[in-house]
Amino acid sequence: MAKSTTCVCLANTFLFLSLVLFLLLLHLWTLSSFYSPIPIIHSPFTKAKSEPQLEPDGVVGSPNCAAHELCDPPEKSFYDNPGLSYSIEKPMKNWDEKRSDWLKQHPSFAAGARDRILVVTGSQPLPCENPIGDHLLLRLFKNKVDYCRIHGYDIFYNNAYLHPKMDSYWAKFPVVRAAMLAHPEVEWIWWIDSDAVFTDMEFKVPLHRYNNIDHNLVVYGWPNLVYEDKGNKSSTSLNAGVFMIRNCQWSMDLVNDWAEMGPNSPNYKKWGQIQLSTFKDKTYPQSDDQSALIYLLFKKKDKWGNKTYVENEYYFQGYWVEIVKTYDNISEGYKEVEIWEPKLRRRHAEKLSEYYAKLREPYLEDAGYKKRWRPFVTHFTGCQQCNGNHNPMYVGDTCWIEMQKALNFADNQVLRNYGFVRPDLMNSSFVSPLPFDYPA
Amino acid sequence: MAKSTTCVCLANTFLFLSLVLFLLLLHLWTLSSFYSPIPIIHSPFTKAKSEPQLEPDGVVGSPNCAAHELCDPPEKSFYDNPGLSYSIEKPMKNWDEKRSDWLKQHPSFAAGARDRILVVTGSQPLPCENPIGDHLLLRLFKNKVDYCRIHGYDIFYNNAYLHPKMDSYWAKFPVVRAAMLAHPEVEWIWWIDSDAVFTDMEFKVPLHRYNNIDHNLVVYGWPNLVYEDKGNKSSTSLNAGVFMIRNCQWSMDLVNDWAEMGPNSPNYKKWGQIQLSTFKDKTYPQSDDQSALIYLLFKKKDKWGNKTYVENEYYFQGYWVEIVKTYDNISEGYKEVEIWEPKLRRRHAEKLSEYYAKLREPYLEDAGYKKRWRPFVTHFTGCQQCNGNHNPMYVGDTCWIEMQKALNFADNQVLRNYGFVRPDLMNSSFVSPLPFDYPA
Repeated sequence: MAKSTTCVCLANTFLFLSLVLFLLLLHLWTLSSFYSPIPIIHSPFTKAKSEPQLEPDGVVGSPNCAAHELCDPPEKSFYDNPGLSYSIEKPMKNWDEKRSDWLKQHPSFAAGARDRILVVTGSQPLPCENPIGDHLLLRLFKNKVDYCRIHGYDIFYNNAYLHPKMDSYWAKFPVVRAAMLAHPEVEWIWWIDSDAVFTDMEFKVPLHRYNNIDHNLVVYGWPNLVYEDKGNKSSTSLNAGVFMIRNCQWSMDLVNDWAEMGPNSPNYKKWGQIQLSTFKDKTYPQSDDQSALIYLLFKKKDKWGNKTYVENEYYFQGYWVEIVKTYDNISEGYKEVEIWEPKLRRRHAEKLSEYYAKLREPYLEDAGYKKRWRPFVTHFTGCQQCNGNHNPMYVGDTCWIEMQKALNFADNQVLRNYGFVRPDLMNSSFVSPLPFDYPA
Repeated sequence: MAKSTTCVCLANTFLFLSLVLFLLLLHLWTLSSFYSPIPIIHSPFTKAKSEPQLEPDGVVGSPNCAAHELCDPPEKSFYDNPGLSYSIEKPMKNWDEKRSDWLKQHPSFAAGARDRILVVTGSQPLPCENPIGDHLLLRLFKNKVDYCRIHGYDIFYNNAYLHPKMDSYWAKFPVVRAAMLAHPEVEWIWWIDSDAVFTDMEFKVPLHRYNNIDHNLVVYGWPNLVYEDKGNKSSTSLNAGVFMIRNCQWSMDLVNDWAEMGPNSPNYKKWGQIQLSTFKDKTYPQSDDQSALIYLLFKKKDKWGNKTYVENEYYFQGYWVEIVKTYDNISEGYKEVEIWEPKLRRRHAEKLSEYYAKLREPYLEDAGYKKRWRPFVTHFTGCQQCNGNHNPMYVGDTCWIEMQKALNFADNQVLRNYGFVRPDLMNSSFVSPLPFDYPA
């Protein structure tokens, strides 16, 4: 009896120790699987003669792209299709699938893809006729580069007519089309006219408004004007000089139909006539992109309208005449908020601008500066800084004077992080240092 | 006896089960600690009234900055020192320590800090006197923005005189000084004159050349001319219009001593005289930044020269008269290489440019296009596109014509990824689509 009891105890002990060992090994394996790197597999794809040498930064042509690695695998993507065209004349098909496959092949771009933005802007290839035109274009471009740097967006400036017939306000369509193909890693192409100024450097487009209900186009305007009053439509129901368009097949189709009303289309003249009779406030016979978009939205609401967000709860773009007069008031208001709250006066790296933007928001809301009134984008519609043929209702040099004021107002927000300010918005030349703990 | 054996077995079983349970719990805790978020601790630092609301993107003012989080902790950094000045008139002390502390407080910027670059350039605040000047500045700026986008560098364009007396070629010093403070996350400030064009979009500065032996300044020039021939020094032994300067205390000290020879210094006139007598080829009496640097390097070789890399093994900057005539040859050479190797003809996303640059390198080397001959930067020294007062040896419109050629040569490398090319480098207006598998 004693012997069998001993055997049972020994067996129990053995079982017990085995189970303990097993659990320990399981624990250790779990720990290690979080730390070991994904192995890189090299294939015979590259010829020996031209085998790229491993440079100190370690980028080598590899057939399999690891998640962290910048590379182009040999598997075909849409780029390898001989039928691919960057031209607006050739409609794109299956773009959603093509783009999605490309992202799977390039995992290093997958993280953050959903909110990635490319800002696109531009001007004519040749020097401006207006003597001050190019100087203003230079400052307007700097303004956009500053905004993009602060928010981590890429920007592309176009100065070529990618389609010889599509100039003026039609020039953006071939550019947007080409940019979508050149940048499959971006979700949104944000076209912004050269004459639009970012005048609130901290403000960010609230992308979640458009992602949740799956809109593919964002423009500033008034939905009631776009969709109602069918007998009395206005060609300024929205503004087509600033829009965000999702990098997807729907957008490819829209750009196609939109450009169909442009100067490269055989129906260009017809569309001009249709727009003249549809929009009572249209004053010239040529088909324009803005009237064209409004027409598409209300005529085909199911197809185009339902996926277009006609935004007016903040100045996605704002008419300059209304906005420029608010700058002084806003500067004063921000100063008061900062005098009250020391955190907001704190000097910081430019790279932390978004953090301070978030900190500032509730204080601005409390002080009455709701998002809808913040001067996000000041759009100098009707000014025509390049050819100088501004709308005659803007007398003399009003356009250039106010544009300078807007640019300096914006640049002060940038310069602040470099320690300086232009105290006089009408004087672009003079800057002075900002004291510590300004404006306390 | 039987009873006590039963008790021992029961005790063993109990012990066994307890240990198993303990190990299981340990295992589960290990698993969960990899997945649960780092708790955000709210301190009484923020007032309840203005508690920032959690926005959909989740950035909240947090006293502790996690590695992935964009935030500014309440612990003081150099920014919180009332003595901090962005102005070039106030020398900086202990910058290495201040910058290092800032990086520790902001771990999200630590990764990649060693190679991070900020490109800085700019022009005068007011419109150019030369009618074509601003148009060229616009194109020159676009060129730099394209290069930076391809390589993931930030760029800052300055158009203010941060010190009222420091204009012309002296204007860059206050800007570089301020940029170092505004961007503690960058290791290198890369100043590039407005009249310098990136004409090899794939070429990257080989930073490892300067990191290994710990140089803090990179300029293009000829070391023998800088350090030897003491009786016959040349003011063009190097070029000060393009330089990379490390974001460190040594650089702060250099910028200080360098600017001491500038127009904001009481010794400005004296330095002009010293430079005239030192450099036999200097033609005007005002102290200039280039002569100033050469003087500092050879006079104080231990302090300045030994940490300055006078580069000439590639065109860190190249004299335009020599470089522009090589473009056609280079275009032909690249075409031949691409005809031979299909991998290099493959269309791809612009974001993969660096990958294809690496692929191409060994083929270029094999074909004789060594790094030293690649037209990295074409510098239009002596052209003065803004005021138009070019060196008279450049007859008529030579400067503007060749600058346009350089810009188009560079832009073709960018446009290619958007599907187009300017077939005639002398015609900025006309582009045509690039066929699939070009140039096969």
